[in-house]
Amino acid sequence: MTAAEPTTGTPATDPTDSVPHDIDQIAPEHPEAGALDGAALQEALLGRWADVRRASRALMKDPALHRDPLLGMDEHRERVLDQLRILVDNDAIARAFPARFGGEDAHGASVAAFSDIVTADPSLQIKAGVQWGLFSSAILHLGTAEHHEKWLPDALTLQLPGAFAMTEIGHGSDVASIATTATYDEASEEFVIHTPFKGAWKDYLGNAALHGRAATVFAQLITKGVNHGVHCFFVPIRDEDGNFLPGVGGEDDGLKGGLNGIDNGRLHFTEVRIPRTNLLNRYGDVAADGTYSSPIASPGRRFFTMLGTLVQGRVSLSLSATGASFLGLQGAITYGNQRRQFNASSPDREEVLMDYQNHQRRLIDRLARTYADAFSANELLEKFDEVFSGRGDTDHHRQELETLAAAVKPVTTWNALDTLQEAREACGGQGFMARNRVTQLRADLDVFVTFEGDNNVLLQLVGKRLLTDYSKEFGRLDVGAVSKYVASQASEALHRAGLHKVVQSVSDRSDERRSANWFKDPQVQQSLLTDRVRSKTADIAGTLQKVRGKDQAAQAAAFNSRQHELIEVARDHAALLQWEAFTRAVEGIEDEHTRTVLTWLRDLFALRTVEDDLGWYVAHGRVSSQRARALRGYINRLAERLRPFAQELVEAYGLEQEHLRMELTTDEEHARQAEAHAHYAELGASGDAPVHERTLRARQKAAKKANKSDA
Amino acid sequence: MTAAEPTTGTPATDPTDSVPHDIDQIAPEHPEAGALDGAALQEALLGRWADVRRASRALMKDPALHRDPLLGMDEHRERVLDQLRILVDNDAIARAFPARFGGEDAHGASVAAFSDIVTADPSLQIKAGVQWGLFSSAILHLGTAEHHEKWLPDALTLQLPGAFAMTEIGHGSDVASIATTATYDEASEEFVIHTPFKGAWKDYLGNAALHGRAATVFAQLITKGVNHGVHCFFVPIRDEDGNFLPGVGGEDDGLKGGLNGIDNGRLHFTEVRIPRTNLLNRYGDVAADGTYSSPIASPGRRFFTMLGTLVQGRVSLSLSATGASFLGLQGAITYGNQRRQFNASSPDREEVLMDYQNHQRRLIDRLARTYADAFSANELLEKFDEVFSGRGDTDHHRQELETLAAAVKPVTTWNALDTLQEAREACGGQGFMARNRVTQLRADLDVFVTFEGDNNVLLQLVGKRLLTDYSKEFGRLDVGAVSKYVASQASEALHRAGLHKVVQSVSDRSDERRSANWFKDPQVQQSLLTDRVRSKTADIAGTLQKVRGKDQAAQAAAFNSRQHELIEVARDHAALLQWEAFTRAVEGIEDEHTRTVLTWLRDLFALRTVEDDLGWYVAHGRVSSQRARALRGYINRLAERLRPFAQELVEAYGLEQEHLRMELTTDEEHARQAEAHAHYAELGASGDAPVHERTLRARQKAAKKANKSDA
Repeated sequence: MTAAEPTTGTPATDPTDSVPHDIDQIAPEHPEAGALDGAALQEALLGRWADVRRASRALMKDPALHRDPLLGMDEHRERVLDQLRILVDNDAIARAFPARFGGEDAHGASVAAFSDIVTADPSLQIKAGVQWGLFSSAILHLGTAEHHEKWLPDALTLQLPGAFAMTEIGHGSDVASIATTATYDEASEEFVIHTPFKGAWKDYLGNAALHGRAATVFAQLITKGVNHGVHCFFVPIRDEDGNFLPGVGGEDDGLKGGLNGIDNGRLHFTEVRIPRTNLLNRYGDVAADGTYSSPIASPGRRFFTMLGTLVQGRVSLSLSATGASFLGLQGAITYGNQRRQFNASSPDREEVLMDYQNHQRRLIDRLARTYADAFSANELLEKFDEVFSGRGDTDHHRQELETLAAAVKPVTTWNALDTLQEAREACGGQGFMARNRVTQLRADLDVFVTFEGDNNVLLQLVGKRLLTDYSKEFGRLDVGAVSKYVASQASEALHRAGLHKVVQSVSDRSDERRSANWFKDPQVQQSLLTDRVRSKTADIAGTLQKVRGKDQAAQAAAFNSRQHELIEVARDHAALLQWEAFTRAVEGIEDEHTRTVLTWLRDLFALRTVEDDLGWYVAHGRVSSQRARALRGYINRLAERLRPFAQELVEAYGLEQEHLRMELTTDEEHARQAEAHAHYAELGASGDAPVHERTLRARQKAAKKANKSDA
Repeated sequence: MTAAEPTTGTPATDPTDSVPHDIDQIAPEHPEAGALDGAALQEALLGRWADVRRASRALMKDPALHRDPLLGMDEHRERVLDQLRILVDNDAIARAFPARFGGEDAHGASVAAFSDIVTADPSLQIKAGVQWGLFSSAILHLGTAEHHEKWLPDALTLQLPGAFAMTEIGHGSDVASIATTATYDEASEEFVIHTPFKGAWKDYLGNAALHGRAATVFAQLITKGVNHGVHCFFVPIRDEDGNFLPGVGGEDDGLKGGLNGIDNGRLHFTEVRIPRTNLLNRYGDVAADGTYSSPIASPGRRFFTMLGTLVQGRVSLSLSATGASFLGLQGAITYGNQRRQFNASSPDREEVLMDYQNHQRRLIDRLARTYADAFSANELLEKFDEVFSGRGDTDHHRQELETLAAAVKPVTTWNALDTLQEAREACGGQGFMARNRVTQLRADLDVFVTFEGDNNVLLQLVGKRLLTDYSKEFGRLDVGAVSKYVASQASEALHRAGLHKVVQSVSDRSDERRSANWFKDPQVQQSLLTDRVRSKTADIAGTLQKVRGKDQAAQAAAFNSRQHELIEVARDHAALLQWEAFTRAVEGIEDEHTRTVLTWLRDLFALRTVEDDLGWYVAHGRVSSQRARALRGYINRLAERLRPFAQELVEAYGLEQEHLRMELTTDEEHARQAEAHAHYAELGASGDAPVHERTLRARQKAAKKANKSDA
């Protein structure tokens, strides 16, 4: 898009108005329930490492790995530690490590396998993540050969449990500002690790309260009076008996809102001395004489390269959050297909919950979003593997990976909380029972939205990247053009577009079907989603453009005045990425019926996304008022059309009863309904059934009436 | 509104465009932080029974009543039982009962006092609610003098713990269809209580798993072969030693998603015989010979009258959910005012979180909604007291009360979950620690949205009432007119209105201030909120009108096709009620500065409500595209303007540290920030501070440049 094309991206005409492919018209050829190619769906949902995931899931059926909801915190922590050993014994954890340590250098496969541990117990998944995804990975990615040889064998076999000590009480999101120092002492050739005040204490660290023997500690590296920024150090913290080493101390974080199988805690260091060679020195080293050196000259780039290894956690959370959403939905949809309440449409048979429109909108809308989560998380995983395998390890790819992870992790984790909550509510009291697991899963996943990068902070990074890309594009052409373009966007051009649309819609106002056709055209969907990101980004860029060259405070104020919208546009960008991933997945399905149904689901995802921001679309002339008014009806019909496939669609993810472990997904409610039905049928046949007073009164009234007319 | 006035309710012109009262223009007279009349705000927030609530809160400071988060389920249950006795000993529970039982016949005051128990432990509140709000209240309201004398003294003193056995495994929302039967046996003059299949078992009953000695059991009353519908029976269930009586059995519901201090369980009855006089016979009686009689002829009306006593629970939940929201917000806002992260606007001082726009939007938006919750819950409480005191106990008032409760309970309880979650996330890892209570409160309140009436089912009742009122209004005039009106609403008239607005907005497109003025006019706000309810109701009524006279299935299908929107319009109606309550509260504030700030908060509530449904407003011509585009900026500025008052506004609710019991609301974060700040100040003064590599490089670069230009 250039400044000369102010309305590019706006779907100005209806390319599909003349094509008669309304869903109602093709009704006779519709697939019927049971017609879906479940295996193909499962391949698409599980992605490139589907086989690895199925193997991981097979292991997760083992009851020894399952959570026992009745355990208190202390017992739960011990159980999870034992479960980690089961994972080691089953060779389940080393895939991402080099072959000489028993691994396969298989990064994507490793994260894929990890993600399914969530079905056994999220505490197990996250504690495994601490030990192998963070602590051991820091040694691998930030250390060099000597470190690998020295510590990886024990770390991988859990002989050396470790904490990943980056976050401090005072600094979580802003890692560059952490206050722990590692000051080099030339005399002894040691680093002195020190937390100078309480805000500098390391906090929320898994393995810190009890089990950790060492920690990979992030600290400001200071040598010869210069602070070279955050680096990572290997610091032993406990002896063989579990006692803190001299200078090391800590506190137990105690009970948390969830994940209580993990012993999170705080660590503090009072002038703790470690050998010079305990600096994990891949991206920065200190010679014996205290001279600092680094293969990366820029301190900023060096910092982001070191932190880049953290992206693995975000990929893993995106996948496992998606799994949790599927788990909740399988509970709610199965129950919704068995449970009956209120006899709306017949005098003697109650309705199945899934036949209520509101229930469809509550669950099928979220099923669409969860499919989008799965497809986008899979693409994120592939990008991660491309970079970490070295196949595509360029700056450009790393940046793309960072941005993709920063977009996908927030939406998938928030969606999991929302979906688990809706699933819980859709099952009423049943949903609240611990035996149905939904509330506990939600509690465990709660922290997914703020750890491994706070969702709002990550989205702000995405927003900044959108702004950078935008200004790069325009910057090369003509800086002045940006503000001109933005100005026209914000008033005249858009305004005219808005008017144009409304006038145009008068001509098709009686034809709701045309609106539906327009909305279901993938080009229209893509334009609507793309143009929104473009346009909002341009608008925010215009605000920032005005303060270019002014002082830091003025620039910060301008940025802050658009922060809320910048985070929104990042979510919009995530929705676009998800839509694209969904569309690619649809295109990969060969079976026609399955593709048709999956297309409906993709349409539902797209149109719900538009509906959630409909005010913007109409006010900015992207959707006519007429079409906006038709949208809800179309979404309702899409959900209704998908309703017969809801069970197959949710089951395609492939979770088995050993993974689900909920009464909701068994046949129990169905059996209860059948028993009740049989009871009333028998009672009716016996002739002993009491007459309802209401019926009696109606009869008496009718008799009276008859008497009157006789008289 | 009549069919002749198709656009009534639509704010067609801007009554305020000529009045120069833009908030920016009155800036010099703005109140400053610290200027609010906190006492007046507190009176408004606590409502008519403010003194009773303060007395209840004083009792809730007692640590013996507080939750101990480390207790397992079994110990927690015993502790809560002990705490109930403390309530009895402090005369805290009998206010709603007659004077001869130690009470005051004070219904509003009783619920007001109960609602603050939530600060001690929601389990305690709900278990107290089971014992006195449900079990004892059923005896009081459904029984007669003999029952009162016989059971109330022991029930009130907890000598007789009881369960309220209405819900069954198979029927929760649809109480009329419960399957437990109470069949009268003339020979023995006894009722036979029977649960004929598993779906008929009573479930989720507090006091049922362990402590209950009796239950008020709802069952279909059958005598002489006629089923007179659901009635309530007093049924002893356990002996003095806690063993089930013959024919009675049960199961423990076990661990739940929250409220684990309550022993919820299931009960089943196998031909359990109770004396005829154990029928709580205020609204229906059976003579010794089996003859049924009732003061209410219509079985339907009788049923709803009996269930009407349940409204008390909804009132209580609305109030306590509001209290929980305030608690969460006080944690997050206090922390947000102390915590710093990222130095955006200055090189060496980090920003306070509350200064970030996104943080303001996350917390101050919700503060506005929570104020709306408080004011609307107070009005609900007054209406409840009016009806239950007998001062206004008419059919009309009872219906109004039911509808009000069915609207306010869902929005306040959902808001509590959303607010607690946002508060949790806004505090990052701190919010996830049990010592900050937010996650546990959220877990406990989770079930508030589905018990005492499922929120979606309640809202559907509100929606039906809106339809009934609507059709009454039109039914008397001309039935045909309704559909004609609706048809015109849906296309021509509205469409023209939409066009008109857009054209009109062209003329004021450059004046964002005018849009802001328009939005802040209370008449405009009221029109926008009222008209939305009217218009959507009319539109749905049109759909139903088309199937009038058709068979049940067709009518049900038509209704179902609009169910999702009907529930939405009920929420819209609740928003209107909340806006009205908020506005009345604003008008009751005398201090000018306080009223000004509270008006901003009311405006924020109103405009966020409009923003959430902006697509509807623009597509239906109620808000011009120009104004829609200006709305977000205006909301951002409102939040920014309220930001200095956020702490005072949240503290006005009057929770003290003994109620809050969160590290977040103490000075700890502030102390940590001060310690860190002092450390760096001292280091800077000492001259020993390391130079950052980045600074060094910048200096070297500058020196190089200087050298070059020298050369």
